[in-house]
Amino acid sequence: MLRSINQRRILSNRYTFIGGTQGAWRVVRMSSFRGAGLRAVERIDIVTGDAPVPRADAWSLHGFTSNVRYGTRAEVTTLAARQPLLNRPEAGCAALIPIKKSAAWWGLPQDERRAIFEETSRHTAIGLEYLPAIARRLHHCRDIGEPFDFLTWFEFAPQHAAAFDELVARLRATPEWDFVEREVDIRLERVE
Amino acid sequence: MLRSINQRRILSNRYTFIGGTQGAWRVVRMSSFRGAGLRAVERIDIVTGDAPVPRADAWSLHGFTSNVRYGTRAEVTTLAARQPLLNRPEAGCAALIPIKKSAAWWGLPQDERRAIFEETSRHTAIGLEYLPAIARRLHHCRDIGEPFDFLTWFEFAPQHAAAFDELVARLRATPEWDFVEREVDIRLERVE
Repeated sequence: MLRSINQRRILSNRYTFIGGTQGAWRVVRMSSFRGAGLRAVERIDIVTGDAPVPRADAWSLHGFTSNVRYGTRAEVTTLAARQPLLNRPEAGCAALIPIKKSAAWWGLPQDERRAIFEETSRHTAIGLEYLPAIARRLHHCRDIGEPFDFLTWFEFAPQHAAAFDELVARLRATPEWDFVEREVDIRLERVE
Repeated sequence: MLRSINQRRILSNRYTFIGGTQGAWRVVRMSSFRGAGLRAVERIDIVTGDAPVPRADAWSLHGFTSNVRYGTRAEVTTLAARQPLLNRPEAGCAALIPIKKSAAWWGLPQDERRAIFEETSRHTAIGLEYLPAIARRLHHCRDIGEPFDFLTWFEFAPQHAAAFDELVARLRATPEWDFVEREVDIRLERVE
């Protein structure tokens, strides 16, 4: 019992994005939409599981996948039917968008965050319009002392890059984005 | 920028409960309500901030405080008006109740979890009946690879121990508890 409780489980829900000189994704553009940016890097490496040892030449951002926080049964069912998997051969483009929301957002009760997220801003409804072209994995990181609250990873084929730009612009124009105080936008292409 | 991102923030929302021979709280009773128990210990020590180095003679459970997950504006306002702080001089009794919910619970969408939590099980409404006698701090731990999903810490005066037993029994009789697959109940008294 002693051993089983002190021996941590494998963190199968943990992902680390390492910005440096290694990895399968080449950075083609990095910009700050709001707040401080991140140091420019050549590549991003994605590591699954427990946090790797920090490398001197790189930064790293950690996040974890988790349960649904806002979605209703109807929304989750519709999303599940339309959303593609990651790692599609044709999806040679990607984006990593780290976001930090304000203390005002996190101080809101659940019903008011939900109302801003969907009833007002149509976050899921807008996203659904771009499926199945754009694959997505959301990582949470506010609770583990990271500089951002979310890291969202997107993958799409080159011919959907303009649609992805439109999606991001539409979300940034919503009332939900009034609560975003830092956002970095990193665009990538898969290294052949 | 490199330094600022690799230098982790202080984890001010992190708490560790160390079961062993040290600490301000003496264990008076430990039982398993459902599933595997924990090794019997004499004391529990509560450490704030980054996870301490494991001690060979003890187990440790880690959790973090976070934003509201289910509460509405009305519920949060009512709770805030009635709930007492921890560390009241008269609150010589405490309970640590680690809980793990099932995969079925975590697979439910937000609206269905909310409905079971409050509209069906009246979790917050029942809890409010025991305020301001019982102080409480909820720690989350499912997302960080811990053996439990929640660690709830309660403090109350000796004359409210029977009321606390009643509160726990009422919650365990709700439909929400059908989703609890492991629960340990540790009762403690403050060491003079």
